[in-house]
Formats: sequence, structure tokens, C-alpha cells
Amino acid sequence: MEKEYTIAIDAMGGDYAPKEIVEGVLLARERYENINFNLYGNKGQILAIIGDRDQNRIKIINTTEIIEMGEEPVKAVRSKKDSSLVAAADAVKNGEADALFSAGNTGALLASGIFIVGRIKGIQRPALLTVLPSVADEKRSWVFMDAGANAEVKPSYLYQFAVIGNFYAKNVLKRKDPEIKLLNNGEEEDKGDRIHIEAHQLLKNSKHLNFTGNIESRYLLEGNADVVVADGFSGNAALKAIEGTALSMFSGLRKVLTDSGLTTKIGAALVKPALKKFAAVLDYNQAGGAVIAGVKAPVVKTHGSAKAPAVANTIGQIKTILEKDFVGNITNYIQQNPDEFK
Amino acid sequence: MEKEYTIAIDAMGGDYAPKEIVEGVLLARERYENINFNLYGNKGQILAIIGDRDQNRIKIINTTEIIEMGEEPVKAVRSKKDSSLVAAADAVKNGEADALFSAGNTGALLASGIFIVGRIKGIQRPALLTVLPSVADEKRSWVFMDAGANAEVKPSYLYQFAVIGNFYAKNVLKRKDPEIKLLNNGEEEDKGDRIHIEAHQLLKNSKHLNFTGNIESRYLLEGNADVVVADGFSGNAALKAIEGTALSMFSGLRKVLTDSGLTTKIGAALVKPALKKFAAVLDYNQAGGAVIAGVKAPVVKTHGSAKAPAVANTIGQIKTILEKDFVGNITNYIQQNPDEFK
Repeated sequence: MEKEYTIAIDAMGGDYAPKEIVEGVLLARERYENINFNLYGNKGQILAIIGDRDQNRIKIINTTEIIEMGEEPVKAVRSKKDSSLVAAADAVKNGEADALFSAGNTGALLASGIFIVGRIKGIQRPALLTVLPSVADEKRSWVFMDAGANAEVKPSYLYQFAVIGNFYAKNVLKRKDPEIKLLNNGEEEDKGDRIHIEAHQLLKNSKHLNFTGNIESRYLLEGNADVVVADGFSGNAALKAIEGTALSMFSGLRKVLTDSGLTTKIGAALVKPALKKFAAVLDYNQAGGAVIAGVKAPVVKTHGSAKAPAVANTIGQIKTILEKDFVGNITNYIQQNPDEFK
Repeated sequence: MEKEYTIAIDAMGGDYAPKEIVEGVLLARERYENINFNLYGNKGQILAIIGDRDQNRIKIINTTEIIEMGEEPVKAVRSKKDSSLVAAADAVKNGEADALFSAGNTGALLASGIFIVGRIKGIQRPALLTVLPSVADEKRSWVFMDAGANAEVKPSYLYQFAVIGNFYAKNVLKRKDPEIKLLNNGEEEDKGDRIHIEAHQLLKNSKHLNFTGNIESRYLLEGNADVVVADGFSGNAALKAIEGTALSMFSGLRKVLTDSGLTTKIGAALVKPALKKFAAVLDYNQAGGAVIAGVKAPVVKTHGSAKAPAVANTIGQIKTILEKDFVGNITNYIQQNPDEFK
């Protein structure tokens, strides 16, 4: 028999919560037979959405507060003890659930992961892990971390991000010997500020990681690595620049294709399906949620505008993370290599 | 009568040097009547390219060495005293020329600017200034600096970049009261690491700058600022990510449009002119060269693959920088506001 897992669901976080979150859970329940769902939120609203559908494998825990998208994260997590997010995080901490899902305030989820679920012993700083697409090679999506949790880092943090990213690439993306690169402003090993120069040496001297050198942000979408490690400040700058350029280009393209003459308009209609397919490749939100990595249980955030299918996909991602024991693998690695985690 | 200027030209730097550099100079000579050109390089080769065309306003100074694209910049500038680049930089230093042009090794040009032409008194760190397009508003190109010269910065450097960028936006882009933003990982003033938080306060408290807050890299191409100030590390990460995403997307687009069925192929043929026009908007190399800003004379780099028209355009950009006295304006500002430049 398959091992069973319970996921704590923040049913009230996200632009379309609780409706799309609950519908996503119902969709995921059909797909994944070994998953139980603990839903935290307004019980009346959740029950109304479920309607006359059965509540097998679903438990509803009523909460009275909601952390909004714009709230200051740390303050909100500290003060709103009966929010759907904090109650769900508490359940993970207390062992009532194995993982935490939210589509709400990213900073608040990060704070809940770090302060409530708690860091894995030996991990200095948990970070935001995200999976990005490769335009050159559709099959080679890749792990990027830190996507923005730590604006200031030490070389040892970057090393730890690589260890974490390595397990994610192995366990979830099923890569054999993940190729790891360091985001830097040049390929040579003496490039970057002191932190990146030192991190490069730590990674290069690792006996356990397949580190193949620096990567410039220019080549991120070319699929040249399975894991790219970055400090949260320039990592965020690169990630948001990629996102912004893609979005700006699509809107710019739409403009030139519709504002031009008739010939172009006819052409635009003909290429539309191909463009849509292409846009889907770049939409990394489809690939699932961002993981607060380095904490004692899977804590996963899907985008705020997620609808039911995206919610169900992210739950599928959490199922894989649980089944492959991503957290356990990191914990074991630290125990076996204590000198790397002093 | 128009004031005359002399530009020192590194005729041997760039993928198509000296041919396209010399042809670009000849093109620029036709356009700009008040510019004289001192060409540094292999005299025999340069003369062969000029052929039977006249040498009005052109002076050729023979040099025997070339700094290659891959060479270690500082070492190359120090050791190759008779290279076309170092000789041209020396001419600017000695007052024989008013500005320096090169399509060669960027790092070597940066080193020549800093060590030979020299910093403006009061400027702590010269930086790489580049002009980028806005996809949302074609008319609102914007100044970005530092694009990668300084991997490590202090808050005061970022402040100085803003002063420099402000004059560039005024003098060269003809903006009245340039809107200045700081590249950061969030819009709120407490975002970022300590350096960016402190720089934000310096900029906010300036009496002379129209600072309107932080900008995330997501919005860079939306045309929301006239000047964006960044540290050279995350600035480089954002810039290269924009460049890489645009290039990856165009190659990905080409693939879906040509690998698909007949309908898409026909459509692709019809939209091709519109796509080409759109690609031109994004090709920031067309907008001219990158400026080593904060040194005592205009030092401008055009891209290595520049052909004659791009060379001539960059010379036009240098002409504007000279005529508007960009360097003089910075120097005067520092003299008038000495407490900002301690």
C-alpha cells in the first residue's frame, strides 16, 4: 500500500481563495489517492464550496483571521495567530501534517516556514527555490535558488543552497548527476565580488557536487545547468528581469501584431496557436510552486492568481517532494557531512 | 561657426576592425562637419581601406600592438603601451583629442578610461552607463548604470551614479527633470541589503535629484524612469537577463514559427516585417555605445560586432556628449556641491 501523507492547506490565501483553492484540492483528491487534506480557513465558506460533494480525506479546521497580500509578513505572522496560514503552519510543526501549501502572501509563508516550521539543523538560511524553463531545451527545466529570500548572503549560504538545489534536482526533476552553476558576472573563477569568488571555491572543492562553474544571467534560459545558485538580491534581479522581459515582449508583440496593417493581422491570426504554445513554455508558474527550502517540511507557494488546476499541480509537486523524501535527504546529508555545515 | 572637436579612434578594436571602423569614420565625417578624427592603428591597413578617398579631417597615427577581445584588461593596458587603444587614450589624456572611441575589449577600455584618461575629481568610481529601450513607450529610452563595472559598491557610489546619470539624461536624452529610480528587490524604502537601504535614503534626501523610489527589474522595460541606478553586480545580472531573455525568446519564436505546420509558416511570413520592426526596438545596440562615465573625457564603447553605420551612430552620440558638455556639467556640479562628494 502507498504511504499516506497529509498536507495542511491555507484555504484563504490567494486572489481566488477560498473558491479556487478548495476546487484545486478536490481536483487533487481525485488524482492522488494517498494524500489527505487539512483545510484551514472559514469553515462555512469552505463547506459551501464543497457543497454536496463528499468530504473523504478532507478535514476542515475553522480559522478566523486572514493574512492579506500586502501585509508586512513577519508582523502578520506574529500577530495573526488564528489566521489560516499560521494555523496550517502550526499543524506542520506539531506533526499533524507533513507539508504546507499556500497561494497567499509569499513573505508571510517564508516567515511561517522559518519561524514556525523551523530550519533544518545546520542550514544557516532557508531560501526560495523555484523551477524555471529552458527555452533552448524544453525538457531541461532547472532549479534556481535563492530567488529572493536573502538579500545578503555569505559564501557558506551559497554552498548550502547548492546542496539543497542538488537534492531537489535529483528527487523532483529526476536528474542523475545534476550540473550546478553559480550565477555571477563572468565565467572566470575570479569574477564577482568577494562573496561570489569565495563561494566559487567552496563549490569547486566540494566532493559531492557536480559544480561546473559560473553562469551569466544572459544564458539562464539556454538550459545549461540543472541548478543555478544565486544570492537573493541578484537572483531576484535576474529572475524578475527574465519575467519582465518575457511579459513586456509578449505585450509588445501583441501591439505590433494588432496595430499593423491587414497583412500582419492575417498573419497574426495564423501564428496565434504557435505563439500560445510558446508562451506556455515560458510560463514557469505552470511548472508548480516556489519552495521554501531548508526548513523541516515541504512548504510550497503557488502564485497568487492560481486557479484550481494550478493548485492541483502544486499539490502534485508536494506529493513528489514528500515521496522522494527531499527534506530527509538534506537532513541525512548534513548529518553525514557535519564539517560542511559548521 | 560650430566648435570643432577631435575624437581619438581605436581603429583596431572590434570584430570587424579596422575595415568597419574606418568605414564608419568616413560615414561620420560626411554627417558631422565639426568633428576631426585621429585614427590609431596599423597605418598601412588604414590607408588601404581609405583608398583614393581624401583624408580631410583624418589623421592616422601608426601603432604596432592590438589588445585582443579575450585579454586580461588591466594587464593588457599596462603592458601594451603601443596598442591602438592605449595610444588613443594617451592622446585624450594629453589633450590632443577630446574623446575616445573603441569597439574593442570593454574591460580594457574601462581600464584605459580610469587609469589613463582619469577619474573626475570627486568621483569615487567611474561606471558603465548604457541606454536601454522601453517596450511600453518607444520614446522613453532610459539610462542604466552601473551596467557592470563595480561588482562591489558603497551607498555613496550609487548616489554618484545618480548624479552622473541625471546629467546624461538631461544632456543626451534631452529630458527636462529626469526621473531617477534605484534598482532594488522591492518598492518599499526598507527593501534590499544595507547598501541599498542607505543609498535609498541618500537619494531621497537629495535636493538636486528627482528621485522617485525603487524599481524592481520586472518593470525595467516598461519605461517608468529616465535613469535607473544599480550596483554593478545586480545591474549586470538584470541587464544580461533582459538581453538573454530577448535573444532566447526571438530564437524560440523563430523555432516555433518555422517548425510548425503550413498555416503557421504562412502566418510567419506575413508577420515577419512587424517582428523585424519590433526586434529593432529591443536592439539597444542601435541606440549607441556604452559610456565609461565619471572620467575626464567621453570614453565610449560600441559593441564588438559593430559595422560602419553603428560606428557612425556612436560617433554621433560622442558629438552630442561633447557639445552638451556632459563631463563639464558633472565637474561643475561637484565643485558646487562639495559636501556630497567628500
